[in-house]
Amino acid sequence: MRYELYYWPDIQGRGEFVRLALEEGGADYVDVARLPGRGKGIAAMMPFLENNKTGRPPFAPPFLKAGNLLIAQTANILLYLGPRLGLVQKSESSRLWAHQLQLTIADFVGEVHDVHHPIAGSLYYHQQKREAKRRAGYFTGERIPKFLDYFEGVLAGNPKGSRYMLGRTFSYVDLSIFQIIAGLRYAFPKTMKKWEPKYPGLAALHDKVTARPNIAAYLASRRRIPFNKYGIFRHYPELDTQN
Amino acid sequence: MRYELYYWPDIQGRGEFVRLALEEGGADYVDVARLPGRGKGIAAMMPFLENNKTGRPPFAPPFLKAGNLLIAQTANILLYLGPRLGLVQKSESSRLWAHQLQLTIADFVGEVHDVHHPIAGSLYYHQQKREAKRRAGYFTGERIPKFLDYFEGVLAGNPKGSRYMLGRTFSYVDLSIFQIIAGLRYAFPKTMKKWEPKYPGLAALHDKVTARPNIAAYLASRRRIPFNKYGIFRHYPELDTQN
Repeated sequence: MRYELYYWPDIQGRGEFVRLALEEGGADYVDVARLPGRGKGIAAMMPFLENNKTGRPPFAPPFLKAGNLLIAQTANILLYLGPRLGLVQKSESSRLWAHQLQLTIADFVGEVHDVHHPIAGSLYYHQQKREAKRRAGYFTGERIPKFLDYFEGVLAGNPKGSRYMLGRTFSYVDLSIFQIIAGLRYAFPKTMKKWEPKYPGLAALHDKVTARPNIAAYLASRRRIPFNKYGIFRHYPELDTQN
Repeated sequence: MRYELYYWPDIQGRGEFVRLALEEGGADYVDVARLPGRGKGIAAMMPFLENNKTGRPPFAPPFLKAGNLLIAQTANILLYLGPRLGLVQKSESSRLWAHQLQLTIADFVGEVHDVHHPIAGSLYYHQQKREAKRRAGYFTGERIPKFLDYFEGVLAGNPKGSRYMLGRTFSYVDLSIFQIIAGLRYAFPKTMKKWEPKYPGLAALHDKVTARPNIAAYLASRRRIPFNKYGIFRHYPELDTQN
């Protein structure tokens, strides 16, 4: 099946967690809003958000068209794709545990976003910079270590060994952990320099992911959008407060 | 099977979405942290959060013990319980759509929380009141109608009729919509007085839920914890800004 991914074309954002899974899984997919030409691009995405003809409208991108299914919410898309792309074990308990971790990652990603947008998504960063700076102190001092402690603990406590987040085999959760470490390094380089020595397992997992052939090819391609100041992970030096 | 729910005993919070499903489904369950006695109460909950012996630790409550499974993340628990309690249709497409809506509800609940905690969860409300008041203006003016427009649209656009959120049959998503409307009315009474006339479908669904025998019995019981100023939906008049 050819999957159609719909997401903002100029950022990694939440869509990147889905792109990584599609790439690692060698899926046949198109990133619709990034295609040039008439009826493609963002113009192809908006009708799904603006009307209800499907009866099952997404609230926001990303969403995935898979045959007759239209699936939104990043973690829900990965719940669907995981077993189909060989990126999670098929037992119910494995799928629930992978999804639980992905939802915790989603919570963290929400907090990363709200560091630069603590007041409203409809305001620019510079309009809420004072509050952002205050929030950033708690985020870099408390929340980054809280979440990374947890993920490092899950990795170290994996009863099947500490190579991957789940059991013996690689999964989409490993891809998401890679993305989080890469994003934090970009957005909060000083903070990560301070905290990273506490998380050798997550750093090693990040490197293992970048060495996987499909991911290495993806990261070297133009399909990987660089981090920038429009996405979720943004580098504003004044918010990188742990040093 | 006797389910064991673990959640903070003095608030509705995120656990309430699970309690509602267990009650409506007539499940055999215990709300462990609310039990009196040695080894019960919060003392019974903390070991799951503080060590890794399970290999699959929750990041935070709520979590559900179901036989050998330990499942965390509210929406993930409902994903698991839904088909078992007859609270979602069993087809994969129905389960994904229900879960997608529940995850959108979870996003909204996160925003409700952050209205009173825009800077840090580790601070008290009074320590971030200035920022909370600023955020509340956008939340009550933009975000409440954005989400309620969406949910009302899903209900009205249900191709099987507009009685319930999904298809022809009652589901856990209806319970969650009830909880959101009840919570908003408690926390933001003036704001809801302004907006509610736009959402007759959601108001009618709220009433249908309260009339279901199991839910009516639950709401009249001491098992239903009243809304209060420790939970997610909190009534601070200064944050109820649309009037």
